[in-house]
Amino acid sequence: MRLRGRKGILESIASQTDLVVLDAAQYKGKWREFFGNDRPIYAELGMGKGQFISQMSVRNPEINFIGVDMYDELIRRASEKARAVWQEKGEAAPPNLALLRANIENIDEMFEENELERIFLNFSDPWPKSKHARRRLTHPRFVERYIDKLNEKGEIHFKTDSQSLFEFSLNSFADMGLVMRNISLNLHKDEPREDLVFTEYETKFHQMGQPIHRVEVVIGEAALAQHREQLKTKYRM
Amino acid sequence: MRLRGRKGILESIASQTDLVVLDAAQYKGKWREFFGNDRPIYAELGMGKGQFISQMSVRNPEINFIGVDMYDELIRRASEKARAVWQEKGEAAPPNLALLRANIENIDEMFEENELERIFLNFSDPWPKSKHARRRLTHPRFVERYIDKLNEKGEIHFKTDSQSLFEFSLNSFADMGLVMRNISLNLHKDEPREDLVFTEYETKFHQMGQPIHRVEVVIGEAALAQHREQLKTKYRM
Repeated sequence: MRLRGRKGILESIASQTDLVVLDAAQYKGKWREFFGNDRPIYAELGMGKGQFISQMSVRNPEINFIGVDMYDELIRRASEKARAVWQEKGEAAPPNLALLRANIENIDEMFEENELERIFLNFSDPWPKSKHARRRLTHPRFVERYIDKLNEKGEIHFKTDSQSLFEFSLNSFADMGLVMRNISLNLHKDEPREDLVFTEYETKFHQMGQPIHRVEVVIGEAALAQHREQLKTKYRM
Repeated sequence: MRLRGRKGILESIASQTDLVVLDAAQYKGKWREFFGNDRPIYAELGMGKGQFISQMSVRNPEINFIGVDMYDELIRRASEKARAVWQEKGEAAPPNLALLRANIENIDEMFEENELERIFLNFSDPWPKSKHARRRLTHPRFVERYIDKLNEKGEIHFKTDSQSLFEFSLNSFADMGLVMRNISLNLHKDEPREDLVFTEYETKFHQMGQPIHRVEVVIGEAALAQHREQLKTKYRM
C-alpha cells in the first residue's frame, strides 16, 4: 500500500469537486446551487469519518446533507465512505451530499441565515476542562450561531457518550431558553431503533455497553408548532 | 420494645398538634397562621422518614417547611426524627416545621395559590411501567398543580437515582416549556457539596456509587429574573 503524504491527500480531495468543498465561504447563501435543487439542508458539524452523514444521505434522498470537518484526512476518508455507500445503491456519486472542509468557528462564513433546516452534533469533543468550556460545540456562543443559520423548521440534534458534555449541553440549551424534546439518557437501552443512524463512535460505545445521551432542540416556529401538536397526544392533554 | 399497632401510631401522631397536621385541608390558605409568621414556605412532597425536611428546617430557620406524606407510620417516624434533630440544637420542638398527612393527589385541598415558594421532590416513586406514567409526581398533570401553588419566587427542586424517572421528568418539564437550571446527571461526582442535604435514600445510593440526578425548575417571575442575571456571569455574556 502506498502511503499518501499531506500533499497527496489534498490533491485527492481537491479533485472531487462533485463532493468536496475546500473553500469554506464558496457556497454561503448558494448551497441550493451546489445541489441543483431547493430541498432542505441538514448539516453535521464535526462529521469525523463520515459514516453518519453518508448513511443519512442514502436513507433520505429528499434531503441534502453537508458534512463539515476541518481535517483533510477526515474529508478524504469521508469521501471514500460516501462513494462506497452510494455505490452499493448503484449510484456512481452521492447526489445529495457535500463534504465541507472548514473550521466550525467560522460558521458565519459558511452558511447564510435560514439556509439550514437541521444541525447534527454527534460525539463532539467534550473539552473536559472548564477553562475550555467555550470550545464545546454546545456552548451558547456556538448555539447562537446555529440558531442564526436555521430556518422556520430548524432543529438541532445532539448525541454524545460524554455524561459531562451532555450535562453541560442540557444546561446550555436550558439557560438559553430553548425548547428541548426527546431527551434520552440511554438511547439504545431497548432494542436500537431502526430509524437511528449510528456514527463510528456510537457503534463502538454501544458495543461497550456505554450509554448514549441524546436531545433534540426545537428552534423554528414551524417546528415548535408541530411539537406542541404532538404533546397533546403524548400526555393526553 | 413494645410494638405499636395501627391505632397506637395514629394516637401518637394525633397528639402532636404542634408538629403534625392530619386534616389535609385544615390550613389551606392559612399556613402562615400555623407557623405564626409570614416567612416563605418550602414543601417536600413525599418526605418519607423525614431526614431531609428535618435537616433543612434546622439549617434554614428563616424558612418554614412542610413535609407531606400519606402514611401514618412515616409521619410518626418523621416526627421522631424532627424532634431529635431539633433537640440536638437545644430546642424542644421544631418551630418552623409541619408534617402533613395527605395524599399528593389532593394538593388542591392542601395549599392555596401562591402559598408555597419552593417544592422539593426527592426520590419520588419512579412508577416504571408506562401505563402508570400519570402517577409519577413529575407528570405534567401534577406539575400544573405545583405551578398553581407557587409564588413569584417559585421553584421546584427534584432529585432521583432513577435514570428513567429523571429522563421522563426532564421531558415533562421541557414539554411544558418550563425553565430548567443546574441540571446534574451525577450530583455528588465531586466532593459532596456542604449545602446539599441528603435524604435517607440518597445516603444509601451515594454509598453504593449510584449517580444521583437533579434539576431545578424556575417558575416564578422573580426567580426567572434572578436566574437571567446569574447567566450573564456563567457564560460571560
